[in-house]
Amino acid sequence: MPTTLPLTIELETQSATQVVDITDRVAALVAGAPGAACLLYLRHTTAALMITTGETGVPEDIMDVLQTLTPKREYRHDSAAHVAAHFLSALVGPSLYVPMREGTLALGQFQRISLMEFEGPRRREIEVRLLAEA
Amino acid sequence: MPTTLPLTIELETQSATQVVDITDRVAALVAGAPGAACLLYLRHTTAALMITTGETGVPEDIMDVLQTLTPKREYRHDSAAHVAAHFLSALVGPSLYVPMREGTLALGQFQRISLMEFEGPRRREIEVRLLAEA
Amino acid sequence: MPTTLPLTIELETQSATQVVDITDRVAALVAGAPGAACLLYLRHTTAALMITTGETGVPEDIMDVLQTLTPKREYRHDSAAHVAAHFLSALVGPSLYVPMREGTLALGQFQRISLMEFEGPRRREIEVRLLAEA
Repeated sequence: MPTTLPLTIELETQSATQVVDITDRVAALVAGAPGAACLLYLRHTTAALMITTGETGVPEDIMDVLQTLTPKREYRHDSAAHVAAHFLSALVGPSLYVPMREGTLALGQFQRISLMEFEGPRRREIEVRLLAEA
Repeated sequence: MPTTLPLTIELETQSATQVVDITDRVAALVAGAPGAACLLYLRHTTAALMITTGETGVPEDIMDVLQTLTPKREYRHDSAAHVAAHFLSALVGPSLYVPMREGTLALGQFQRISLMEFEGPRRREIEVRLLAEA
Repeated sequence: MPTTLPLTIELETQSATQVVDITDRVAALVAGAPGAACLLYLRHTTAALMITTGETGVPEDIMDVLQTLTPKREYRHDSAAHVAAHFLSALVGPSLYVPMREGTLALGQFQRISLMEFEGPRRREIEVRLLAEA
């Protein structure tokens, strides 16, 4: 029983850097679906997907620490801020997956699915795939 | 021929930070199994999964370098050590996959599957999924 | 209709650090293939796979920023340069996946698949898997 493709999630971020919790939207989209794992893929190069704790304030702390990883220097391309956004997007990565168990996301108790915006505000699109068990 | 779910690996870490090589346990669990890839997913937010070299001392060096990535400053949440554990867990990530070839993990010659403990000692649980080839 | 395994990509890197755009080779290999996602897995511990922007100069900027993440100090194993290569390989990671849509890679407009060489020149081998939709 193939699911109907394409499954996508679209959203608008609101500021230059932002952590957007998309767990509930993903959970609603795949509720009751078949498959061993749910794959998420962000089609952009200045944002990323991350599994973070949902504890208050920590996702924003994680964003702050990420920003410290990019030195303020000259780059080949253009501004340090633009390169930093591309670097963090590539480092954190555009994809993640969550195992499924009986038609629900088998996330840990404190785990949340976060979109990390590094150069907003922008419209962002996420592809969703349900993968079959062997 | 679906495998019997859930497949999980449980273990207890022994210290605050630790690298645990789980390659042999994963290999034993999936030996002879069908599927194109094996997915591993850790259900925690202060530890992570990583493919590292197995060369003596290097996984511990990798842990040391990871610890240098988190600045010692004030955070929204609470102690710098606790935020550092959440940050490294999110950055390294809770999941990885290894391709299968004829019922065995198709790891490279020097590759090992490592659980990176950032806030132990704790009991940790890993979900395992075998994914079907298209 | 299972695809014929193994699907692999082989290449030779040319310098100590290098960004190799492998998007066209992957696209050609999986053109018209079935499946919900394409998984790539590098069988080495001193290189990695990354989704980067294709904007001129930025992949090289990303490589430069990565090199700043490893402190120049004493390690258990051996030279700082060798540990740095292992660290970056583990941090960036050996695997990534791209969703498929109608037999083509559903990459974003600016996304490219990059092999990040951290200790070349070397011969590198990438396993490719096509995963079935649930």
